[in-house]
Amino acid sequence: MAKLQRRLRLGMVGGGPGAFIGAVHRMAARLDDRFELVAAALSSDPEKSKSFAKEIHVPRAYGSYQEMAEAEAKHPEPIDVVAIVTPNSTHYPVAKAFLTAGIPVMCDKPMTMTVDEAEDLASIVQKTGLTFGLTHTYSGYPMVRQMREMILDGALGKIRMINVAYVQGWLSTPVEQTGAKQAEWRTDPTKSGKGGALGDIATHAYHIALFTTGLKAESIAADVTTFVPGRRLDDNVQAMIRFEGGAKASLIASQIAAGIENDLTLRIHGELGSFEWHQENPNYLIHSPLNDAPRTITRGGPTAGPWAVFSTRVPSGHPEGYLEAFGQLYKDLAELLEAKLEGREPNPISTLLPDVQDGVRGMRFIDAVLASSENGSAWTKL
Amino acid sequence: MAKLQRRLRLGMVGGGPGAFIGAVHRMAARLDDRFELVAAALSSDPEKSKSFAKEIHVPRAYGSYQEMAEAEAKHPEPIDVVAIVTPNSTHYPVAKAFLTAGIPVMCDKPMTMTVDEAEDLASIVQKTGLTFGLTHTYSGYPMVRQMREMILDGALGKIRMINVAYVQGWLSTPVEQTGAKQAEWRTDPTKSGKGGALGDIATHAYHIALFTTGLKAESIAADVTTFVPGRRLDDNVQAMIRFEGGAKASLIASQIAAGIENDLTLRIHGELGSFEWHQENPNYLIHSPLNDAPRTITRGGPTAGPWAVFSTRVPSGHPEGYLEAFGQLYKDLAELLEAKLEGREPNPISTLLPDVQDGVRGMRFIDAVLASSENGSAWTKL
Amino acid sequence: MAKLQRRLRLGMVGGGPGAFIGAVHRMAARLDDRFELVAAALSSDPEKSKSFAKEIHVPRAYGSYQEMAEAEAKHPEPIDVVAIVTPNSTHYPVAKAFLTAGIPVMCDKPMTMTVDEAEDLASIVQKTGLTFGLTHTYSGYPMVRQMREMILDGALGKIRMINVAYVQGWLSTPVEQTGAKQAEWRTDPTKSGKGGALGDIATHAYHIALFTTGLKAESIAADVTTFVPGRRLDDNVQAMIRFEGGAKASLIASQIAAGIENDLTLRIHGELGSFEWHQENPNYLIHSPLNDAPRTITRGGPTAGPWAVFSTRVPSGHPEGYLEAFGQLYKDLAELLEAKLEGREPNPISTLLPDVQDGVRGMRFIDAVLASSENGSAWTKL
Amino acid sequence: MAKLQRRLRLGMVGGGPGAFIGAVHRMAARLDDRFELVAAALSSDPEKSKSFAKEIHVPRAYGSYQEMAEAEAKHPEPIDVVAIVTPNSTHYPVAKAFLTAGIPVMCDKPMTMTVDEAEDLASIVQKTGLTFGLTHTYSGYPMVRQMREMILDGALGKIRMINVAYVQGWLSTPVEQTGAKQAEWRTDPTKSGKGGALGDIATHAYHIALFTTGLKAESIAADVTTFVPGRRLDDNVQAMIRFEGGAKASLIASQIAAGIENDLTLRIHGELGSFEWHQENPNYLIHSPLNDAPRTITRGGPTAGPWAVFSTRVPSGHPEGYLEAFGQLYKDLAELLEAKLEGREPNPISTLLPDVQDGVRGMRFIDAVLASSENGSAWTKL
Repeated sequence: MAKLQRRLRLGMVGGGPGAFIGAVHRMAARLDDRFELVAAALSSDPEKSKSFAKEIHVPRAYGSYQEMAEAEAKHPEPIDVVAIVTPNSTHYPVAKAFLTAGIPVMCDKPMTMTVDEAEDLASIVQKTGLTFGLTHTYSGYPMVRQMREMILDGALGKIRMINVAYVQGWLSTPVEQTGAKQAEWRTDPTKSGKGGALGDIATHAYHIALFTTGLKAESIAADVTTFVPGRRLDDNVQAMIRFEGGAKASLIASQIAAGIENDLTLRIHGELGSFEWHQENPNYLIHSPLNDAPRTITRGGPTAGPWAVFSTRVPSGHPEGYLEAFGQLYKDLAELLEAKLEGREPNPISTLLPDVQDGVRGMRFIDAVLASSENGSAWTKL
Repeated sequence: MAKLQRRLRLGMVGGGPGAFIGAVHRMAARLDDRFELVAAALSSDPEKSKSFAKEIHVPRAYGSYQEMAEAEAKHPEPIDVVAIVTPNSTHYPVAKAFLTAGIPVMCDKPMTMTVDEAEDLASIVQKTGLTFGLTHTYSGYPMVRQMREMILDGALGKIRMINVAYVQGWLSTPVEQTGAKQAEWRTDPTKSGKGGALGDIATHAYHIALFTTGLKAESIAADVTTFVPGRRLDDNVQAMIRFEGGAKASLIASQIAAGIENDLTLRIHGELGSFEWHQENPNYLIHSPLNDAPRTITRGGPTAGPWAVFSTRVPSGHPEGYLEAFGQLYKDLAELLEAKLEGREPNPISTLLPDVQDGVRGMRFIDAVLASSENGSAWTKL
Repeated sequence: MAKLQRRLRLGMVGGGPGAFIGAVHRMAARLDDRFELVAAALSSDPEKSKSFAKEIHVPRAYGSYQEMAEAEAKHPEPIDVVAIVTPNSTHYPVAKAFLTAGIPVMCDKPMTMTVDEAEDLASIVQKTGLTFGLTHTYSGYPMVRQMREMILDGALGKIRMINVAYVQGWLSTPVEQTGAKQAEWRTDPTKSGKGGALGDIATHAYHIALFTTGLKAESIAADVTTFVPGRRLDDNVQAMIRFEGGAKASLIASQIAAGIENDLTLRIHGELGSFEWHQENPNYLIHSPLNDAPRTITRGGPTAGPWAVFSTRVPSGHPEGYLEAFGQLYKDLAELLEAKLEGREPNPISTLLPDVQDGVRGMRFIDAVLASSENGSAWTKL
Repeated sequence: MAKLQRRLRLGMVGGGPGAFIGAVHRMAARLDDRFELVAAALSSDPEKSKSFAKEIHVPRAYGSYQEMAEAEAKHPEPIDVVAIVTPNSTHYPVAKAFLTAGIPVMCDKPMTMTVDEAEDLASIVQKTGLTFGLTHTYSGYPMVRQMREMILDGALGKIRMINVAYVQGWLSTPVEQTGAKQAEWRTDPTKSGKGGALGDIATHAYHIALFTTGLKAESIAADVTTFVPGRRLDDNVQAMIRFEGGAKASLIASQIAAGIENDLTLRIHGELGSFEWHQENPNYLIHSPLNDAPRTITRGGPTAGPWAVFSTRVPSGHPEGYLEAFGQLYKDLAELLEAKLEGREPNPISTLLPDVQDGVRGMRFIDAVLASSENGSAWTKL
């Protein structure tokens, strides 16, 4: 087949006025100019959905995701993929509707409300062969990919210990009782699922630990806390993890670290050296080799490898950030979709895009953490 | 007049295959979705211009900027603004052609090859009232604007000393002799003008010092050096500056700082405190008040002021970078253009967009630095 | 009683040629000029003990600690205190011998080999009223004391979460098999006790968490690992801790973090803000208040409180380090001893010197960690 | 001759109650236990001198430096060296008196009040062959010596540009009018000499630039300012320097950088790479090689060279600071003195101790900076 001569057609469900992550998806999808947003059900309120679609120049506005899935499946120029940016509770039905209609999906995390739903989506994806991306944003950072590439190449030797901490402070007080929309749904189990900080950020921490090291987790001992009185979901998680082969990890996820913004820090220690990476200053990766000086690998710099180079767009010293990491997931998605449309193999680096199996693992993680915590922090299978 | 119901139409001159800054302009213009690139003369080679336009989905491709200016002026849906992203030598004729055709301009820096050309553009802009933006990128960073806002509000008291250094290492060796395109034109006086590091980065350093403090420079004592043998333009500049009111500055700009990437650092010291900001980690601004603990103002954080808030798009702790700063200049441009088209006053923060007068000051700076350096570093009027 | 007109007389047991911590004690004791080292049993080899004493200008050299305790007790100008700087296995008998002889003690940690021994020392100290210091060095850092003072003053509100990690890499390989003296005894259970990294550094991490917050630990769930094949003691510890009142902590201690030097990092999160402190750059304390900009409290700076000011000796910006922190413990010791000799109350800040009860808590911690780890990481009383 | 079996006997002139630098000298001299302070004229008030000597356990107290020089010269166990820690105005007569009496000198900087005085001291030192140390403290830091060693070894290739800045804020307001003793004499030309910030800290910045690079300065263009109204000496200096062989430097020294503590930062750029070092976190040296990842050389770490290793006393990761750097100068002094007394060559690393020629260069620097500044910043011979 020939090279695609057009931008990919993107649809979106969710992301209405004031939504944080919907706007991020749109900026991310625009960054590399391989998508145009042509169809959307932006709000559960059909009127709002249509008026906001007009405002942001989306030609095809729908009143509901069901209507949209049905119509797009029949459209002569249907969307190539749909982005699902609703609260967690509707990820599953929306994803199922589009997959069933034969339309690939780019879904926010956590992927579903239950492990069963996650496994159902995984099963559909397997049967249909449709592309399914999961926006574990932090895996889009070039220096995160650099860690994965170097670890797979043996730069750290066998991994022994991982310390991952994802710490925020924005839920230090009961802001969900003051009308803060982002806080409301994230602390509401009917919209967010079983996990609070657990689903919202601990899943990211868990994903990045697996993503960078390629290790398989065996079991977890966890202690889950709700510190803010009246809150309906957890706001603090700590856990110890054991991996196949003997590696161990500590995992911290908190949304009550007063005064802290979005501090996702990853430290990985292997037989031959260590990595340290901070999401808040993501362009630098500290590599401390055994018996040598620590060195700083920079995004775009002389020691960045091919995976990092593929995942960046401006020269070293010109910092990239969260939107570029998110944009990278869309770049991966574009590459996977275009390759299929063009009948070729994708650039293998694009298969780093988190997928439906990552979503299943994330849901099992949530269940295991809660089970362990309720059972005296007993070691629980992951 | 009514609210504009469409994206602004952007044109581009320059930015062909492999060009760095052209691609940056396009990403920056897409970020906030207020522009669509509809017309371009991407290369001085008409064939290349048209084939690349097709590749990047630009509907109206022109063989030359003259043709483009003429045609767009008559087009029923003409471009609202043209971005000029060519090497320095053609900024002036291209800008003049479009301004004369009644089309606003977004121009790379340094603005022209000579002060005369700069003053001519300034005169045209004054006469026509057309919008003219100059991409001094670093003024788009929220924390840079935060400095300006706080200094104007008196947070540092009277400014005494500024230390600005813009240090890169990519020209430490004669890479321009090895086929590196970005190095070739930047070290070629016929394309770059009188200044090497002087025009390329010292102008940024000078601009950010003026931008943040609002001071007026009086005179400069400079020492300009070409360290790399065979290089045709300077690669290292140092200078001392005196301002109206008694403030002083040191300015360093170097492209031979081997091993350094893009380290633009600004320190401002006033009677009541100091600022420190680093472009390579731009989301943080250190404010050290007299007799109090230094504090870190964060982009999007609790102490960021309205100018910074206007100039950002994701929450604190989710880093933004170079593309977002550049995108901010396009957001300012969009606001200025839309306000005119809609017959209203723009958000005043958007008037922070560097303009043709900044371009004139930059050209005078280049001339004064060279004159001082050639004259025993004598104090020379700015 | 009158002011003491002389330096305090210090004795030392251990600290022979090549010993690390003995030399540190001597430098620390000299720093503020309130001690002179007048008597020592520097080595278990009497000849070596005497020749090294001569070399380092110690007038009274003994062949054994027993001989020394006996002789000093009868000396007309006896030592005012003895520093015990031997491997862990002899702390208890040496301390007991001197206490029984009526001589105060400054002892290395961990204090003993067993909880029983620790409680026996505590009992003797209680009966005799003798001064007993325990060199948990990191509690001597001014910024560590600043945390304690501010937390007691309510600056962070109620403490919710503590994250303490003490990470080193020097035992990443089996260096104890290559003749490295420091590694040999630290990995030898007959000299070091039940804990490897656990006794050597996890006890420091535990102490600093209690010291800074004033919290009482209730129980711990731990996972202890020996990563290096052939090693006889653990080299990696992770644990979760619960405190009275609901606070929680994560604790990491590792000596196999390849490439890492001596990274003791403490983060404390309370209802009203957070602290972050790094031992490797100890002059700075980051205080992130809820809904305000993070600020950096500097040793000697304008926002350092009286406890920090008491615990420092050069102006802000002139960094202090490990020796000064250690010297502060000796300054505290001097103050406690002089106050007794002069019949007055000591400066209360000097009572921050860790004491025999800290030693008991440390030994209970070691036992609890090992018990939990051997019991499926079950929550175990502290 | 045989190995010295005793500590060196140290004398001190100046350093009475409340003096900052005298106390620092005493702590520094004690650190490695190679000196005992046996004689002193601590104050110009004989009574105060004697009572304070008693308080700090100095056996031989003198009422004046003249008396002391005379008496010590005849003493059966005379001092081996005298430390001069008075305000600048008396360095010269005191040094001359002791040198003339045959006693080596450890002198504070700036060395004298005039170039003539400096040259006179140099001439006496040359004639007598007596040891003369000058306490340019920052040359005692291990990482500063590491820079010198690596640069001499060619690690940076030919040096092109040096950027040194020594910035403090403690004189941002007229504190000398409020009774602050340290500020009073430093802003009083009769006690401090011709330079304010110039003599106090610019001389340190100049010294460290020469010390690390081994370059010879040719000329300087300077701009000296007094920002605080009523101040009698400068409080801000900026300069450009040219070296033999073509290297250039910028130098900044300021005491009005409000909110800044003691920020001495050195950046050195050569053909093959760059160094960056910060005095406020002195245990780390960033080495950015051309076309490779920046690496961090740590004090005591695996890539520290022999000069750094000689100049440190605790393992890597256990930070050292200002007192240890100062102590290193005393260790160098001890080695030089002992070698003479023992009739052997000293460890050559100890010859890094700044000497009387550094003092002469410092005084010439002060004169040249003032001359240039008064002459329109004209390039002036150094």
